[in-house]
Amino acid sequence: MPAAASGKGTAQPARTGKAGGRGRKPSAARAEQTASPAAASVPAAPPAAGQTPGQARGRRGRPKAPVTPVRLTMLGGMNEIGKNITLFEYGDDAFLIDCGMAFPDEEMLGVDIVLPDFTYVEKNRDRIKGIVLTHGHEDHIGGLPYLLGRVNLPLYGTRLTLALVESKLREHGLSGKVKLNVVEPGDTVRFGKVSVEFINVNHSIPDAVALGIHTPIGNVVHTGDFKIDTTPILGKMINLARFGELGNEGVLALMADSTNAERPGYTPSERVVGESFANLFRKAENKRIIIATFSSNIHRIQQIIDAAVRDHRKVAVSGRSMLNVVGIATELGYLTVPDGVIIDIDTINRYPKDKIILITTGSQGEPMSALTRMAFSDHRKVEVGPEDYIIISATPIPGNEKMVGRVVDELMKRGCEVVYERMYDVHVSGHACQGELKIIHGLTRPKFFIPVHGEQKHLQKHAALARSMGMDAKNVLIGDIGKVVEITPDKMEVVGSVQAGRVLVDGLGVGDVGSIVLRDRKHLAEDGLIVVVAAIDPEAGEIVSGPDIVSRGFVYVREAEKLIDDAKAIARDVLESCCREHAYDWTTMKGKVRDELSHMLFQKTKRSPMILPIILDV
Amino acid sequence: MPAAASGKGTAQPARTGKAGGRGRKPSAARAEQTASPAAASVPAAPPAAGQTPGQARGRRGRPKAPVTPVRLTMLGGMNEIGKNITLFEYGDDAFLIDCGMAFPDEEMLGVDIVLPDFTYVEKNRDRIKGIVLTHGHEDHIGGLPYLLGRVNLPLYGTRLTLALVESKLREHGLSGKVKLNVVEPGDTVRFGKVSVEFINVNHSIPDAVALGIHTPIGNVVHTGDFKIDTTPILGKMINLARFGELGNEGVLALMADSTNAERPGYTPSERVVGESFANLFRKAENKRIIIATFSSNIHRIQQIIDAAVRDHRKVAVSGRSMLNVVGIATELGYLTVPDGVIIDIDTINRYPKDKIILITTGSQGEPMSALTRMAFSDHRKVEVGPEDYIIISATPIPGNEKMVGRVVDELMKRGCEVVYERMYDVHVSGHACQGELKIIHGLTRPKFFIPVHGEQKHLQKHAALARSMGMDAKNVLIGDIGKVVEITPDKMEVVGSVQAGRVLVDGLGVGDVGSIVLRDRKHLAEDGLIVVVAAIDPEAGEIVSGPDIVSRGFVYVREAEKLIDDAKAIARDVLESCCREHAYDWTTMKGKVRDELSHMLFQKTKRSPMILPIILDV
Repeated sequence: MPAAASGKGTAQPARTGKAGGRGRKPSAARAEQTASPAAASVPAAPPAAGQTPGQARGRRGRPKAPVTPVRLTMLGGMNEIGKNITLFEYGDDAFLIDCGMAFPDEEMLGVDIVLPDFTYVEKNRDRIKGIVLTHGHEDHIGGLPYLLGRVNLPLYGTRLTLALVESKLREHGLSGKVKLNVVEPGDTVRFGKVSVEFINVNHSIPDAVALGIHTPIGNVVHTGDFKIDTTPILGKMINLARFGELGNEGVLALMADSTNAERPGYTPSERVVGESFANLFRKAENKRIIIATFSSNIHRIQQIIDAAVRDHRKVAVSGRSMLNVVGIATELGYLTVPDGVIIDIDTINRYPKDKIILITTGSQGEPMSALTRMAFSDHRKVEVGPEDYIIISATPIPGNEKMVGRVVDELMKRGCEVVYERMYDVHVSGHACQGELKIIHGLTRPKFFIPVHGEQKHLQKHAALARSMGMDAKNVLIGDIGKVVEITPDKMEVVGSVQAGRVLVDGLGVGDVGSIVLRDRKHLAEDGLIVVVAAIDPEAGEIVSGPDIVSRGFVYVREAEKLIDDAKAIARDVLESCCREHAYDWTTMKGKVRDELSHMLFQKTKRSPMILPIILDV
Repeated sequence: MPAAASGKGTAQPARTGKAGGRGRKPSAARAEQTASPAAASVPAAPPAAGQTPGQARGRRGRPKAPVTPVRLTMLGGMNEIGKNITLFEYGDDAFLIDCGMAFPDEEMLGVDIVLPDFTYVEKNRDRIKGIVLTHGHEDHIGGLPYLLGRVNLPLYGTRLTLALVESKLREHGLSGKVKLNVVEPGDTVRFGKVSVEFINVNHSIPDAVALGIHTPIGNVVHTGDFKIDTTPILGKMINLARFGELGNEGVLALMADSTNAERPGYTPSERVVGESFANLFRKAENKRIIIATFSSNIHRIQQIIDAAVRDHRKVAVSGRSMLNVVGIATELGYLTVPDGVIIDIDTINRYPKDKIILITTGSQGEPMSALTRMAFSDHRKVEVGPEDYIIISATPIPGNEKMVGRVVDELMKRGCEVVYERMYDVHVSGHACQGELKIIHGLTRPKFFIPVHGEQKHLQKHAALARSMGMDAKNVLIGDIGKVVEITPDKMEVVGSVQAGRVLVDGLGVGDVGSIVLRDRKHLAEDGLIVVVAAIDPEAGEIVSGPDIVSRGFVYVREAEKLIDDAKAIARDVLESCCREHAYDWTTMKGKVRDELSHMLFQKTKRSPMILPIILDV
């Protein structure tokens, strides 16, 4: 970890317990970091395509000097879950907020992860002064190694966030090549005329922050991912006082987390889960306890460890990411583990079952995860059975329901007792529900509002929530990735768009799987493949070998010999008739073979395999 | 429709409104149908593999004459959702209960539907006297056309159930070839020594029945799919009195629906949805209303029509299955539609938006459904926009959450207002929750219990519920498909197993897609394909054409020329070295090409495409 270059200010009400004075200008009162790139090297921001910046007008309608707008370019995280990344610009001063990845949806066959399209960032690399990180989840930091390998920018984030980033950079051979600047809640970082203040929030990972972005035309508040937890496990309750102070100073625009905007009420405190664990551990009696949860939820891991200590159980850890995070969090002091409590997974069988708690990955039923391997008897070190009490401490992310269900079914078939899904409060969300969102809106009282982090349905619900609190509909904007939004004290509008989208990572390939490859994979997945090969001697005008037919994923060939023979006969007829007519245009011949075969096969099977005719010229 | 061959009994308390007398033997008091096959042609039941039937013993332990057991063979619907089918046997008297299909899960690439394995039914075709149907949902009748095409058996079901079956048979060219016997709740059908009584229940389709199966050794109750609806839209409340009478007579075994066994409490009445509709229709104001729901939920369609009449709107119907079911239900009188209310979808644009309600398929986000096509501007007759108020009156079935979410997002992007998922009670389940299950257990007080219709987790929860009501754990059995269970008054046990499983339907092919084809489809889907073709002249010892490489679904070839050239060079090296050594064993040569290429490609890309080497002998 790099040394913390953090200066601490005096106006940190939540940290000192004192209420901040109203109306103060905190950015002036605080010690600041200054972002490193020299301002002189930064060219002027190019105007958005075909648009001129909005002109601010005075109260009586007289034209004033043009106001420099705040410009937000949404490069990810709008109309989608994941890969959150936003470019913030004020004149020549530009920085990125987060740089996440997303998981592929079921249409993206064979894809490992999904990145934002970094083209616009690369084009503007000279103007961008750094990346500000809100927290250490994959959808906020997972894109960093891919971007930093091409555009080296200094990072600003809290200690845990940067430790998780550092571990990623190491995997990608970028360790030591990127400047990591540790900040604490209350700190401010300056990028030219803009300063960014970090505000403590609650979330399902420690050290999460919101951003108070101070510009000459007003304050912009970006909540990051957050919830309100009045009894957090680690760290302080979200600094609501600071949100209120900013509201009193005046907030030009609010960008807020929409993940749970569909849910009424309030997200319960993480502490509720600890209470459930205590009850369940009693019920587990003399069984071994296995808990699957998100590796990044250090609060939850701490509660499991606390319960283990209380119940005199040892804790073992399974799963690569769980081992990694527990290691980092223990080293940095985010996890408090008494000596001797954590044992190596290789030694668990030396203890009685009722003296063990195993913490594992796999709470989403991921096919290669530790819990899934246990369920399917494919884990090298853990065999589960009737003496196991298994708690899945997570809610399935939409799309994962069936995978989780299958793991539960398999565990139960082996006789395990399984606590899952919404039973017994074994999980709480890390995101604010409607009640909490309203508190933030009510405290900040923004002039303009942009819901962020969510699909269209989440963004719309959040927009409706803002309107229900009295915001003018024209001051609420639902964006989309690629959109450039300009905000002045008088107006918020979309002024253009830039290249944005998704870049697919498959194995080592970044961006080499695109829509054509995916379309072919889908076609192959649904109906399989027929390859027709023949060697033709154009001079003799005859087929010298073949046609042979090879099929995969179409029918079980041994039971479809007749069909394959028919296909071969058709291919032979087509090729021979071309040979007789001396029509040796390979493309035409292949097209004819494809058409005839595809027609026949559809007639007989109502399936449309991919047909690949290959003709060798001998 | 065949003429109803139904005789009506006198002991039908729920139909007459009078409570039935206790202790009567209703099967004797009722008019009965006698199943047609001559009993003389039925051979004795073969003993289950390696097992002898359990011997019943008297109270004092003295051996008695062997008791003929009830034998249940679970051919589907256990440890899975869908394709419900059970073989019921008592001595020589055998019949099937239901014959459903299932939808493929995401592993079954390209598969259209999943059928039970009918092998055991075919082997025992001479002993099986008919198929008794509980209701007309696909997971209970969808397998019929496939079975009946091979084994023609008479069907026994209620009027709507058989009308839906008839429409399926017509599609499969089996119309008029199968004997359809209409029954009504209260009727009894006799199969030799066994009589089957149909008991009215509530469910999300009208005319659903449970079965009271009377055998010489006791009564077996099979609930079918059910819920308790005290205020049903159509027909009567579930005949709880009859369940209670059977309980008083004595129930040897209960088989009951486990779909909602995880959910505490009671499923609300279908009428709740009608009340929600009334409120929402007011909110819709002058917009067009579009409601997506299950086509078979005639109760709900009736409530929409009632609301339309009240609000002076016309109703149009979209989607093939919706048109089919609305047609059948109207014709048979299950839907009451005043003249002039239903209009053709082609005429909707002649009316103002606020005078239209459109009922459509697509409530599960199915890719080809009417609502999905509207969402993606791909519907030929309906264009949606800000003047549409759309209600998705269904809960996503596990696995469909993301598809439904995507449809909601798209509709919202077009400016539609969308009411979905758990907002505003726009859907209720058709299955009993724990409270209702307990009522059925409490009324029937069975000696033995087998939870049916569900995955392992549902079956286990239902088993736990039975134990919590005082049942002895050894009298509760969690089965699996293929298991043969024998029940005598003293004992219930698994006595063997028979062939059972799944048969995949893809296009016209039934069973020609198996695990090898699916494995290939998965491989092709994840990493695509490389075909390597060369023509070799073994006599000259040289490659006369190629090697050529064709790839699909692997990389975008135009941007990977170098990689493909490298692959070609490797293939050439391998083939040439084989030619030099005069090693013309095609299998070995292909294996070498595959190994070398696969190694190189994985090194460079960390992907493993399917490699298909093809060598033509010239």
